[in-house]
Amino acid sequence: MNTFEDRLIALFDDVHHLDRVPRAGYVVRGVAHPESVAAHSHFVSLLVLMFIEEYPGRFDREKALAMALIHDLSEAKLMDIPMPYADAYLKKAKDRAEQEIFEEMFAGFASKFAAAHQEFLDAKTPEARLVRGLDKAQMMIKVLFYERERSGYLEEFWTGAANFRDYGVPEVSALFDAICARAGRVRPKPLLGAEEGDA
Amino acid sequence: MNTFEDRLIALFDDVHHLDRVPRAGYVVRGVAHPESVAAHSHFVSLLVLMFIEEYPGRFDREKALAMALIHDLSEAKLMDIPMPYADAYLKKAKDRAEQEIFEEMFAGFASKFAAAHQEFLDAKTPEARLVRGLDKAQMMIKVLFYERERSGYLEEFWTGAANFRDYGVPEVSALFDAICARAGRVRPKPLLGAEEGDA
Amino acid sequence: MNTFEDRLIALFDDVHHLDRVPRAGYVVRGVAHPESVAAHSHFVSLLVLMFIEEYPGRFDREKALAMALIHDLSEAKLMDIPMPYADAYLKKAKDRAEQEIFEEMFAGFASKFAAAHQEFLDAKTPEARLVRGLDKAQMMIKVLFYERERSGYLEEFWTGAANFRDYGVPEVSALFDAICARAGRVRPKPLLGAEEGDA
Amino acid sequence: MNTFEDRLIALFDDVHHLDRVPRAGYVVRGVAHPESVAAHSHFVSLLVLMFIEEYPGRFDREKALAMALIHDLSEAKLMDIPMPYADAYLKKAKDRAEQEIFEEMFAGFASKFAAAHQEFLDAKTPEARLVRGLDKAQMMIKVLFYERERSGYLEEFWTGAANFRDYGVPEVSALFDAICARAGRVRPKPLLGAEEGDA
Amino acid sequence: MNTFEDRLIALFDDVHHLDRVPRAGYVVRGVAHPESVAAHSHFVSLLVLMFIEEYPGRFDREKALAMALIHDLSEAKLMDIPMPYADAYLKKAKDRAEQEIFEEMFAGFASKFAAAHQEFLDAKTPEARLVRGLDKAQMMIKVLFYERERSGYLEEFWTGAANFRDYGVPEVSALFDAICARAGRVRPKPLLGAEEGDA
Amino acid sequence: MNTFEDRLIALFDDVHHLDRVPRAGYVVRGVAHPESVAAHSHFVSLLVLMFIEEYPGRFDREKALAMALIHDLSEAKLMDIPMPYADAYLKKAKDRAEQEIFEEMFAGFASKFAAAHQEFLDAKTPEARLVRGLDKAQMMIKVLFYERERSGYLEEFWTGAANFRDYGVPEVSALFDAICARAGRVRPKPLLGAEEGDA
Repeated sequence: MNTFEDRLIALFDDVHHLDRVPRAGYVVRGVAHPESVAAHSHFVSLLVLMFIEEYPGRFDREKALAMALIHDLSEAKLMDIPMPYADAYLKKAKDRAEQEIFEEMFAGFASKFAAAHQEFLDAKTPEARLVRGLDKAQMMIKVLFYERERSGYLEEFWTGAANFRDYGVPEVSALFDAICARAGRVRPKPLLGAEEGDA
Repeated sequence: MNTFEDRLIALFDDVHHLDRVPRAGYVVRGVAHPESVAAHSHFVSLLVLMFIEEYPGRFDREKALAMALIHDLSEAKLMDIPMPYADAYLKKAKDRAEQEIFEEMFAGFASKFAAAHQEFLDAKTPEARLVRGLDKAQMMIKVLFYERERSGYLEEFWTGAANFRDYGVPEVSALFDAICARAGRVRPKPLLGAEEGDA
Repeated sequence: MNTFEDRLIALFDDVHHLDRVPRAGYVVRGVAHPESVAAHSHFVSLLVLMFIEEYPGRFDREKALAMALIHDLSEAKLMDIPMPYADAYLKKAKDRAEQEIFEEMFAGFASKFAAAHQEFLDAKTPEARLVRGLDKAQMMIKVLFYERERSGYLEEFWTGAANFRDYGVPEVSALFDAICARAGRVRPKPLLGAEEGDA
Repeated sequence: MNTFEDRLIALFDDVHHLDRVPRAGYVVRGVAHPESVAAHSHFVSLLVLMFIEEYPGRFDREKALAMALIHDLSEAKLMDIPMPYADAYLKKAKDRAEQEIFEEMFAGFASKFAAAHQEFLDAKTPEARLVRGLDKAQMMIKVLFYERERSGYLEEFWTGAANFRDYGVPEVSALFDAICARAGRVRPKPLLGAEEGDA
Repeated sequence: MNTFEDRLIALFDDVHHLDRVPRAGYVVRGVAHPESVAAHSHFVSLLVLMFIEEYPGRFDREKALAMALIHDLSEAKLMDIPMPYADAYLKKAKDRAEQEIFEEMFAGFASKFAAAHQEFLDAKTPEARLVRGLDKAQMMIKVLFYERERSGYLEEFWTGAANFRDYGVPEVSALFDAICARAGRVRPKPLLGAEEGDA
Repeated sequence: MNTFEDRLIALFDDVHHLDRVPRAGYVVRGVAHPESVAAHSHFVSLLVLMFIEEYPGRFDREKALAMALIHDLSEAKLMDIPMPYADAYLKKAKDRAEQEIFEEMFAGFASKFAAAHQEFLDAKTPEARLVRGLDKAQMMIKVLFYERERSGYLEEFWTGAANFRDYGVPEVSALFDAICARAGRVRPKPLLGAEEGDA
């Protein structure tokens, strides 16, 4: 288990079932074929790719892409604990658990991966803020299309301010506005102090 | 929302999707049609019913049945966080979260429900020990039949001592022995100090 | 196969797949993730638990709970034959078959189980009437939430008087009224002579 | 609802969900993606097509094909009640119910359809015997491939004589022999008197 | 592999998974439980059966039924490539591939099968035109019922003229009119030159 | 539809259902929960990320990641046509169709995306060869774990040389060797001239 190849297979042993872990917020609300955590990760990464191309020089491209690709890998162990319950009841314990799990899974690889994961959780750097904002935006784009397919009871997604949090990135904010415009909805007012509170 | 009937409908609003929350330990390991948390709750309750009939006078029957029926309702909010990761990374935070969630869901009903839920988590009384032991036993009976159906990679279920924890109830211990006998497996040795550690 | 434990494993061998038997009435009408018979049994039992707590002294608690937990186990062999076709075309043959199957599955256990199953089919005692009424009420609560999730064509559930049959239990009748109020629907008039005819 | 076209749409209203009714014998035994009753009907009809081409002049071709296409349509109302329980517990009631249901569904069409359905149930004519034998043969071909995919616990299919009943058609018998040869299994001995008893 | 029986088993080895290949047009648009290609084939064949009974002497009955039963078997290798993309991007290549695949699968059987398959693709004879028209009609009947079940975003099915192509068969055209009437929709105008262009 | 945000939402309108398109090769062979095309894209991208970190300076990192993220987006229109049939019967037509579709979907974005897609198809540059090799390697890692879960009949994956094509990248070749070692299999000999033939 010491070669790069063996460590890589071991990593996929850890995460391979992420394509069977459904995004819990959609399961709860009756979406017919909810996306998996792996599929979600792909869509968020694709969004990040489009943003770093559109806004050259704004973000460290490689870091942003790496962060998007790894941001939910720890859910391979914890599954997808849905918002807002995770925040309301598990508070910081979930963040700590995710970082611990990630570090164990990536123990055989460069420490920059664990650093990027922590950076994502801390939500302070431009790349972390971009990826966290697009993590929410991908969710709302999905809601947009699930609603068109009449799949699930998704009303409360549109009224939760945390679902539209842009993490102070104006480019992401513009995407939330466009999503709401397309849906014919009013974007909820941001939570006061949200920047500090819900990271 | 003040009549009993309205509070009841509100409770089912909270838990109605538990039939869509798959038991995560089976998802992770590739079981084709993993049971839901609601179905699991039914099977555990049925086991409890059979035990209290077989051993009259041993357990408070109503309390044991009530405990079995409610023991996983809080997963309606947190989903099923699989062992052993839940224990390893979230420690007591998960127990606390489950109790908080349960108390909120049952705020409109008699306090004995919340007490029974806490009693289950504490694993001290005969009824709590019975239900917790049968919670594990139901899991291993399921593994027995999934294995026969060649569904999933379930090897590690048979080697984890925590999966056979009888909580000091000899009647439950006898069931674990019978399950292992039927599977042609050796029951793993109990963990030292497990009685205190993994409740 | 003579010990209690072995008989118990054999019973679960018979019923273990009830978490894969979807409730047929929902399949037929296109519900995206229809509950299983096992999950349904859990929800009915939970309703019964709440009722016997709310109305102390009204029902034999243990009998009511036992009846709820076992009332659909025979569907492990026959599957869920949907109403109203089962009644219309199979008449008494289905009831007889269910009792026969149940008695075979529980041959190794106390005869009170078979008696409780027959009592449920006969729908005469207070407990049988309670459980049968709540069996229907759970179905309509589910319909309520499936409709909100825009899942399936469920219109005809709301117009069939048999779906709101309270078996003469006023407490159950009040729950049907609350369900209809919540749905903004008019509860259909009971069928004349239904008390005798559709048990 | 009087034109041919309207009656046709009404017929499909009755049967359209047959592609969501899983074949129960496979559900019970844990097959991962069990075929639907509609898919089964297609495969049986395809088998019949190949047989009537291979053995010209042996069977009334149109009648055999029509019978194959309609033989399970009544399951749209009753679902698929699995063998051997259907036979053991519901005896003739199921056959009667199926014929009644079929006649209602086809009331707007030529009486030859209802006659063909009854003929299938009676299992006396060469076409009925061919289709009933191939109904079983398709089931065992499916078992052959499910076993290769390690899907489900299908052992008991190979030991039940009723699963290899050829209805006295030697061409069908030869197919059963080929299926057993391919699976490396011994074909079970036919039941005494089965020709009369299990139709 | 030389006997008829062995060739038949080999054919089913090729096509057995068609009950797991979902109709792609429905997957794309979020239908909850899309029919499989095998189930679709059954429904089209059933429609053909009803038509040849209703219009005696109009079509070669056996040829029409055979064509319906085999028309999508090549999708066992290519899967269901959805319209209109298949036509728009793969043009004649897909037709050629389907014929090649079909001929390989049926190499061990009478050449009339391959001829019927080519005839279906060419869409010139009365039987081919009937089956192709009913292939579309079955799709729209399905859309009718999926819409009632609020399953998927199916709006564009109703506006695409190619979905209502009757291949010059007035009996099929009448069915399209009835489907549109039932849905309260206006049937789109046929494409100019469609008879030649979209076969 | 002219702002960046609107074009982005339109792009996701095109690809959003890729999380419902199952990888066809696994469907055909009976895998219980086959990964989707979107999940596959995530796993391939993650592999690429690990490789570009492990071998710094070997590949243009951004190009390789972009290529991995977009390489299967055209399957949103064509679905996943399984190998080896796609190659055997559709030859170059599929490649052409995929490029056309991709260019249409990305018409509103920088031309470098279309160029990267064509480069992937051409399989000449180091990045294209890396991603194509890892596309196959991800498939075989998945097969490794599906086999452990006893899910599907995957034998032929291990004997097809095209499934282990390394596109001349030694680092990828080492991964194939490790996969085979872990599975206890012998890696099939490469096809002569494969470098030219199967791109």
